[in-house]
Amino acid sequence: MTKTKDQKRISVEDVASMLRQGEDFYILCHQHPDGDTLGSAFGLYYALKKLGKRAKVLCSDPISERYGYMTKDYLEEEFAPGMIVAVDIADTQLFGEKLLPYKDRVDLCIDHHPSNIFYAERVLLEDQSAATAEVIYEVIEAMGVAWDPVMASAIYTGISTDTGCFRYTNVTARSHRIAADLYDKGAMAGMINRIMFDTKSLSRIRMEQMALSSMEYHFNNRCAFIVVSLDAIRQTGISDSELDGISAIPRQIEGVQVGVTFREKEGGYKISVRTSEEIDASLLCGKLGGGGHARAAGCFIAEDLAHAKEMVLLALAPVMEGR
Amino acid sequence: MTKTKDQKRISVEDVASMLRQGEDFYILCHQHPDGDTLGSAFGLYYALKKLGKRAKVLCSDPISERYGYMTKDYLEEEFAPGMIVAVDIADTQLFGEKLLPYKDRVDLCIDHHPSNIFYAERVLLEDQSAATAEVIYEVIEAMGVAWDPVMASAIYTGISTDTGCFRYTNVTARSHRIAADLYDKGAMAGMINRIMFDTKSLSRIRMEQMALSSMEYHFNNRCAFIVVSLDAIRQTGISDSELDGISAIPRQIEGVQVGVTFREKEGGYKISVRTSEEIDASLLCGKLGGGGHARAAGCFIAEDLAHAKEMVLLALAPVMEGR
Repeated sequence: MTKTKDQKRISVEDVASMLRQGEDFYILCHQHPDGDTLGSAFGLYYALKKLGKRAKVLCSDPISERYGYMTKDYLEEEFAPGMIVAVDIADTQLFGEKLLPYKDRVDLCIDHHPSNIFYAERVLLEDQSAATAEVIYEVIEAMGVAWDPVMASAIYTGISTDTGCFRYTNVTARSHRIAADLYDKGAMAGMINRIMFDTKSLSRIRMEQMALSSMEYHFNNRCAFIVVSLDAIRQTGISDSELDGISAIPRQIEGVQVGVTFREKEGGYKISVRTSEEIDASLLCGKLGGGGHARAAGCFIAEDLAHAKEMVLLALAPVMEGR
Repeated sequence: MTKTKDQKRISVEDVASMLRQGEDFYILCHQHPDGDTLGSAFGLYYALKKLGKRAKVLCSDPISERYGYMTKDYLEEEFAPGMIVAVDIADTQLFGEKLLPYKDRVDLCIDHHPSNIFYAERVLLEDQSAATAEVIYEVIEAMGVAWDPVMASAIYTGISTDTGCFRYTNVTARSHRIAADLYDKGAMAGMINRIMFDTKSLSRIRMEQMALSSMEYHFNNRCAFIVVSLDAIRQTGISDSELDGISAIPRQIEGVQVGVTFREKEGGYKISVRTSEEIDASLLCGKLGGGGHARAAGCFIAEDLAHAKEMVLLALAPVMEGR
């Protein structure tokens, strides 16, 4: 319990031998599981099965059917854990209720988040990796397990989903090198990309339409507002993660430097601001009692829509008119 | 003039020595230039400049400002052509008016389209490449020219735009390997991806809103229709290439197997059909006097909107109800 971060750090090679020596693995995913936590977990699961180990994947939330291609050969077995491995989980707060019993018992955490709190006994953290799946790729290579298309597809899923299919700035030469190798190993990349990047839910498309209808432009089209009403959320049944995608829309418009989403809540509006390089979103939201990052920030305004818009426009005016 | 295709074919190495020996290059791009023809042309241009050659890039249509990062070091010079090279142009019909004078004088064509008609004296055709830029990458390597970030960015642009940022099924392990190498050589991939994949024009976003408002579902949500009216095209000022993106929307909806776009024309509707694997779009459009590919096809119906929809529904009924 008194180990320092550096004492907890472990190399890829040591992780590989730790896994080769261990038995009866519980592999933990974070709640609201995404492609990286799942791809990492199932990639590791199949690798361990190939070594003749017992293993299971645990997650507090159900796994979407979209990932069926990587879960289809998974076999749930009952056994007590010999070694507990967390993948892509930066903090025990992300365990969710079902995994809480394991939060002080994690033997090994494999992750890429700089914010990792080192809750595990041993930590393999590569914060320059675009995805935890890149780290798992190295571990599987070091374990010397033979690849197959399902393993390759799981790892490819982690990398492609965490990079917006190689679009984001977290991509490195290594991400592409690993992807090339996964193609050679039979990753079903075309199918995976279609599922992950070329498919929108009916609720999402309906919400897009409502959000676009609410679009208004200010400051000579350099700022765009959209509104997401409680009514629209109810009508479409859209999920929180899908709403994140909606907030990205206004800033994507050519020439728009500040995209603002007004999301109705009980008692006011949650404001989400996305900006281009020229403008600091966190400074802007700071003026309204909120905060965040330079390119994405937020705040809450306990007013009706007209007043909320007015306050955002007032906060924006000095920034937008000075240029 | 009587050479066969095989006699016209030339290897990467021979192209490299042909370029090293040549002087005063005209590099031709296809009309309505995209990221691949431009990235290929400017990549080659900068490579030739490094060898101390004179070179110029020619295109029948203006080059969008979006590509400013690759055109910024370009210097237009006046000279007569010593060698004419066409990049990413499968057919002389794609030369456009300004380039027509060169159509029977092309010394070398570098391309990846299987449909290339071998109009040039020498042809380097790699139809397994996702982009012509992949072929140019090999040529530059074979020429032994030192890379710089602008050259790397030009080639990266060709590959990323022709693959939808590594999403499409034309991607190979080699595409990713070249991308990795281009990252190492300083390609400004993050910026390029933001410009190419994270930016929509105001006209496009307005048209999306109108198209989404017109969305209707049939056959238990397995089929979606959108309408693009002449009025909407006029109001938004949307370009033809942007309209292509709109036609992709209905099929992207989860569960939708057939997405149909009704685009109003003088005297009727141009129907564009996109399908998932289960359904053959060209068969469907064949019934209505049109044709195309298995996943994307089209036809024209000289009727008003209500009748056009009725005819499409009738053609769809046996296909959709049989499943």
